Amino acid sequence: MLTDQQILRIPGPTPIPPSVGRAMAQPMIGHRGESTYSLIRDIRPKLKKVFGTKEEVMILTGSGTSALESAVVNTVAPGEEVMVLVTGAFGERFAKICQAYGITTHVFNVEWGQAVDPEAVKNFLGEHPDIRVIFSTFCETSTGVLNPIKELAETVKQVSDALIVVDGVSCVAGTETEMDKWGIDVVVTGSQKAFMLPAGLAFIAASKRAWKKIEANPQPRFYLDLKKHRDNIEKDTTPFTPAISILYGLQQVLNLLEEEGLENVYRRHRLMRDMTRAAFKALNVRLLTSDEDASPTVTAVYPEDFDAEQFRKVLKEEFAIEFAGGQQHLAKSIFRVGHMGYCSPADVLQALAASEVVLKKLGQDITLGTGIAAAQQVFLEGKDK
Amino acid sequence: MLTDQQILRIPGPTPIPPSVGRAMAQPMIGHRGESTYSLIRDIRPKLKKVFGTKEEVMILTGSGTSALESAVVNTVAPGEEVMVLVTGAFGERFAKICQAYGITTHVFNVEWGQAVDPEAVKNFLGEHPDIRVIFSTFCETSTGVLNPIKELAETVKQVSDALIVVDGVSCVAGTETEMDKWGIDVVVTGSQKAFMLPAGLAFIAASKRAWKKIEANPQPRFYLDLKKHRDNIEKDTTPFTPAISILYGLQQVLNLLEEEGLENVYRRHRLMRDMTRAAFKALNVRLLTSDEDASPTVTAVYPEDFDAEQFRKVLKEEFAIEFAGGQQHLAKSIFRVGHMGYCSPADVLQALAASEVVLKKLGQDITLGTGIAAAQQVFLEGKDK
Repeated sequence: MLTDQQILRIPGPTPIPPSVGRAMAQPMIGHRGESTYSLIRDIRPKLKKVFGTKEEVMILTGSGTSALESAVVNTVAPGEEVMVLVTGAFGERFAKICQAYGITTHVFNVEWGQAVDPEAVKNFLGEHPDIRVIFSTFCETSTGVLNPIKELAETVKQVSDALIVVDGVSCVAGTETEMDKWGIDVVVTGSQKAFMLPAGLAFIAASKRAWKKIEANPQPRFYLDLKKHRDNIEKDTTPFTPAISILYGLQQVLNLLEEEGLENVYRRHRLMRDMTRAAFKALNVRLLTSDEDASPTVTAVYPEDFDAEQFRKVLKEEFAIEFAGGQQHLAKSIFRVGHMGYCSPADVLQALAASEVVLKKLGQDITLGTGIAAAQQVFLEGKDK
Repeated sequence: MLTDQQILRIPGPTPIPPSVGRAMAQPMIGHRGESTYSLIRDIRPKLKKVFGTKEEVMILTGSGTSALESAVVNTVAPGEEVMVLVTGAFGERFAKICQAYGITTHVFNVEWGQAVDPEAVKNFLGEHPDIRVIFSTFCETSTGVLNPIKELAETVKQVSDALIVVDGVSCVAGTETEMDKWGIDVVVTGSQKAFMLPAGLAFIAASKRAWKKIEANPQPRFYLDLKKHRDNIEKDTTPFTPAISILYGLQQVLNLLEEEGLENVYRRHRLMRDMTRAAFKALNVRLLTSDEDASPTVTAVYPEDFDAEQFRKVLKEEFAIEFAGGQQHLAKSIFRVGHMGYCSPADVLQALAASEVVLKKLGQDITLGTGIAAAQQVFLEGKDK
């Protein structure tokens, strides 16, 4: 087998574009000086476009979780009640953060693999009028569900003025995100997913309504204090030493997204999702989520007739292609195909063609080429969807 | 379309393994000093294994052509007659070099796409007993033919003691090369093909018999004088400044080849050839060469029902995959798929799956998935061939 090849098709980190790798290899610069200021000055407006907001997008040096925690400690005032919509492992993370701070947390559980139903949330809020913040997940990475955030915000606003906080870690920059238009109060994401960077930066933006609350919030915080971050980014700087190499990479990623065009980026992700789903369906391999709930960035496959972990093992041994396993109760029963960030339809065809070989090796009664043909057909028909 | 992706499937240069890229990015070192000497000391024995020789393999800083010219000026004495076996554009290059030096050159033409017939060469040599050197091509890059060099050497030796010089540029390190066992006098190759490096280095080795002639040869030469190169490499150095970054890369490539095992490397190349050929055959697309003559490193496709150049254009536009065009009289009528060096069966499946989509887009009456299924079947059955 060819050595030194690793084809990463997990739901983040994704491979890094060559020009981004080169950008990150630039010599180190001082973070208190014009070189870094001009880098941030260039990044700011482009990052806002990806979030669909006119507000500042703040850049934290940390994993996605640091920004999730930042959302909690900045938006929830001591003594308040919150609601956490849990559709998988990353919804649970929001709940755990809230619980770590002793916040009264209403956990709203949805079966893993399904999206949240906005009407059910509305009904719950009707029964719990003291809820001040709603934490939700946009793409639930652990299941490949894309929750209907736009509809959720619309529906919630009919009965509640609670802030709506969205974890967009595994989909922002891979799917349409219109924070201002949809009335979302806080959007959070990380650098290692559809932003096709290494982990190490997290991005967070807040609405005018959220800022009012953040400014008045007496909850103790320091590193994750968004006021500090906003006051600094408005002057093209950061309150604490930023991960400068990843900032260089981010600048290049934003150039690449602009070059491709955000609409085209989102279309490419939908196309890759549809190709992936069509292939497994044609091979009669079960998917965890419905078409309606499926994220453009990650697909969870839920096999009935073969072992998910064995499948992943053989795929890696034979082709150096890596899919992700499941998490928690789905740990050994699903595998997840990442198709986000630095990933093309050609890459999806590769992963799917190799998957067919593995199915055959595992003794599955499939006709070789069937899944690929379905994916190819989707590509031919669906490119402009 | 995803920007910043380029999937290079031409018959060299090939993509570069990540660890080789990192090796080449090491800081510059002085070429007259222990750092470079130890680099060359490490490279020497490993390079000999790839050539199948106990003789020194000399490292020129130059393209493959510099080593072809070196073979000519070192092995041909003034006034001698030579024979050049021409099976394509790179056979012609040997002839042009000989002619540039005013050497009496017997050009032995074989139809492009076919391999040389050792018996015919033997007969020709019977009629031209004054031929002192025979120049031949191992893999003819322009057609994807692998000439039967082992049989050629055996057969030629029955009637002639002319030196046998082999251009192995597009296959050494991708196919079995046993210079000593087969009785080859000079083998030449370049860095940018199965060695998966950038162009810039060329490698050349000579048999004991060839060295006798080289040492006595009064033909004027300086940069390409193999005596200078041998005297230096025996002391772990080079007569002129070497391309140090590519030497770093070569060291890592040789480690990778050793790690995979040369037999496995050659098996992988045969497998990729067989997958590629099976796919196009299943799609009823004509190949230029017969199974018997086909190189493990490059496949020439010779379409009857669609335009080769249009095919390449759409493949690049839709999938960022680059195949090579033809050369000279085959310039617009064939395309060439490189499957050598840093290329895996997964990469071949990708190129073939994308090719099917392009055939469909060009209006070809194919069944999607047919070619892929044939390639997958070859992979499943043929891995240990």
